[in-house]
Amino acid sequence: MVTRRGRREFLKGSVATSAALVAAGGARAQTADPLITEIQPWAQSFGDGVDATPYGLPIEFESDVIRRNVPWLTADATSSINFTPIHALDGTITPQGCAFERHHSGAIELAKPDYRLMINGLVDTPLVFTYEDLERFPRETHVYFCECAANTGMEWAGAQLNGAQFTHGMIHNMEYSGVPLRLLLEEAGLDAAGDLADKWVYVEGADASSNGRSIPMEKALDDVLVAFKANGEALRKEHGYPVRLVVPGWEGNMWVKWLRRIEVTPMAVQSREETSKYTDTLADGTSRKWTWVMDAKSVITSPSPQSPITHGPGPLVITGLAWSGHGATTRVDVSKDGGKTWETARLAAPGADKALTRFYLDTEWDGEEMLLQSRAMDETGYVQPTKTQLREVRGLNSIYHNNCIQTWWVKPGGEAENVEVS
Amino acid sequence: MVTRRGRREFLKGSVATSAALVAAGGARAQTADPLITEIQPWAQSFGDGVDATPYGLPIEFESDVIRRNVPWLTADATSSINFTPIHALDGTITPQGCAFERHHSGAIELAKPDYRLMINGLVDTPLVFTYEDLERFPRETHVYFCECAANTGMEWAGAQLNGAQFTHGMIHNMEYSGVPLRLLLEEAGLDAAGDLADKWVYVEGADASSNGRSIPMEKALDDVLVAFKANGEALRKEHGYPVRLVVPGWEGNMWVKWLRRIEVTPMAVQSREETSKYTDTLADGTSRKWTWVMDAKSVITSPSPQSPITHGPGPLVITGLAWSGHGATTRVDVSKDGGKTWETARLAAPGADKALTRFYLDTEWDGEEMLLQSRAMDETGYVQPTKTQLREVRGLNSIYHNNCIQTWWVKPGGEAENVEVS
Repeated sequence: MVTRRGRREFLKGSVATSAALVAAGGARAQTADPLITEIQPWAQSFGDGVDATPYGLPIEFESDVIRRNVPWLTADATSSINFTPIHALDGTITPQGCAFERHHSGAIELAKPDYRLMINGLVDTPLVFTYEDLERFPRETHVYFCECAANTGMEWAGAQLNGAQFTHGMIHNMEYSGVPLRLLLEEAGLDAAGDLADKWVYVEGADASSNGRSIPMEKALDDVLVAFKANGEALRKEHGYPVRLVVPGWEGNMWVKWLRRIEVTPMAVQSREETSKYTDTLADGTSRKWTWVMDAKSVITSPSPQSPITHGPGPLVITGLAWSGHGATTRVDVSKDGGKTWETARLAAPGADKALTRFYLDTEWDGEEMLLQSRAMDETGYVQPTKTQLREVRGLNSIYHNNCIQTWWVKPGGEAENVEVS
Repeated sequence: MVTRRGRREFLKGSVATSAALVAAGGARAQTADPLITEIQPWAQSFGDGVDATPYGLPIEFESDVIRRNVPWLTADATSSINFTPIHALDGTITPQGCAFERHHSGAIELAKPDYRLMINGLVDTPLVFTYEDLERFPRETHVYFCECAANTGMEWAGAQLNGAQFTHGMIHNMEYSGVPLRLLLEEAGLDAAGDLADKWVYVEGADASSNGRSIPMEKALDDVLVAFKANGEALRKEHGYPVRLVVPGWEGNMWVKWLRRIEVTPMAVQSREETSKYTDTLADGTSRKWTWVMDAKSVITSPSPQSPITHGPGPLVITGLAWSGHGATTRVDVSKDGGKTWETARLAAPGADKALTRFYLDTEWDGEEMLLQSRAMDETGYVQPTKTQLREVRGLNSIYHNNCIQTWWVKPGGEAENVEVS
């Protein structure tokens, strides 16, 4: 059955639209726009053949949609980070080519024939796997987000970087294929470990930093993947080729790249990366311990400082991303007045477990200033806190795990700025 | 609760594995493998910094995982096709960079400021939209497969290309973001069209071929998207930048790229692309009319001719892709003996509507030859037919819509070949 649905007029009568009446009641365009009335060059000649780009890159017009780094953040580019251009993306998948990177000693080049993965420690039979061995184990495919614990970290002290790419771009969301870590641990045998409830695995990478982290056995046997594909294809060099760990919902530093060794240990190793780094110092000088899970969070990607409104009043799509390391996002609310009133956004799809959710709010803009905020809720009932609420609990000394509500001040001209509201 | 799950030993006792016993009961590796005993160069120096690749490409070791074209298939590369390297991919998402292309007059370069989309014909108010206008309409995000009607077409007459990339690689699967076509038609107003049940839309592209196709109004008002993003980022040039049509489940030729015009018409235009092309001639010389939907289909991507087994007997993962233009894939069976006996494969996730499904069969290989086949079923109860069954109905004259069961002959050495079984 074909039905004429209830008609909503979006652009008609709106001041700043160029959707033009071309010929009332006519079947042919009558307009002075030469892009309509004249046959354009691209319709008069051949384009590129199918042999032009065996592996393609974005078109030149999108050359500003790239990872960007902030040189003054770190001493050296090999121990630094760059940011996903989330302000320019839609949907939920992050292409590997523009997915943020974080290295502690640079992205190394490691060929599959040179790859070895050792499992040792409290196992029945220490084992070394080649890449080809890993391909023979049952594998799984899941979409998960990976967020650096330091994402949004500059907001703690109010040093506001001006753009969603820089405030929230230490995140990507990819479809990973790999072997459950559980299967590899079972292959080595866990009887030697005794009671598993208090055991850990220590994971390290093949790069110079090794970036070792301790993971409790319960998580290791749950949903952790030893992954070799992302978004269908091999991991890129900068994402850990040929093998990285995927630790769903947990901070990105634990997703060890160029994975070299997994040791079953009787206790946490308390490595540099989990003691002096990747912990948050509270107001009283003590530190929070084992802050692995990334709490529920969201950000409006457009409009935002790098994605201003470029049209006049009328229809406006407000869109952004939400996620939770505790499970699925269940709801996102959007405020235009700095948190005084809220509207519930439309989720592009039901929230998925530990994966990004795209939300949209289809609204009318009156051309006046807005204080845009988004607020995520997850399946545990947790609600993303305000900046004030988070500071009350954590103080101002933290670097990591800032999941507070973000505010963009949209000005009457459509430009946006990163601001704080009290 | 941490529990020690039932242990399955995959590689132990298997002849051809290199998973090595490193030190029975010991915590440190004792092996002669220098990749284990010696500190490798990549652990002694810095890798690339985060400023190395603002937009990344695959690592050099994966340089064979690319789109490939077959020059003799067509007269010219601008009216040709290349193939997705599905034999080397896992999961379901196809990166844009290696997603197959099909052009009728080459991939054109069309900048957003030069973009116009006209809606005319039987509408109340003919309209012209700029790119920016489209961004102001409510948008949706969905993952859909796009399959060329000619995919697997060479199999009709038994001219067997040797590899899943060439037999089944005219397909990709991406997450699209765009505006429902329904909303744009409603904006132009459909009252002038009268009874919608017998109306059509004629869609055409801005390239020289224009590639015009007729789509019945019922589909146009259902799930068709006017899309501007794929896998989060802008469409690549070769995929229709800045705007293409997404016609879920229907043949790829209708997914018009560089979308220029949508005309509401009282009847199908019966264009070249839907009469002399994209129809199948039956044994009696008549042609099938309006073969839009891509029927349920599947293929084993590994092992396959381009992805042979490179290890000895023992654990083996058989994996592939399944899809249906009629909805979700509900089940995939795998046969090792050319269709005599079948085992049900494991789906990586429940089948999604008109999207690729990844399947795995975790099995033991005895080192003997196999005749590998996969068979998809969809939510309508349809079962993918054998080549013989399909030929009985359609004869041998077709080019398009070959969705028959594919056979790979895996030889004792692990190499695979495209064969027919009777």
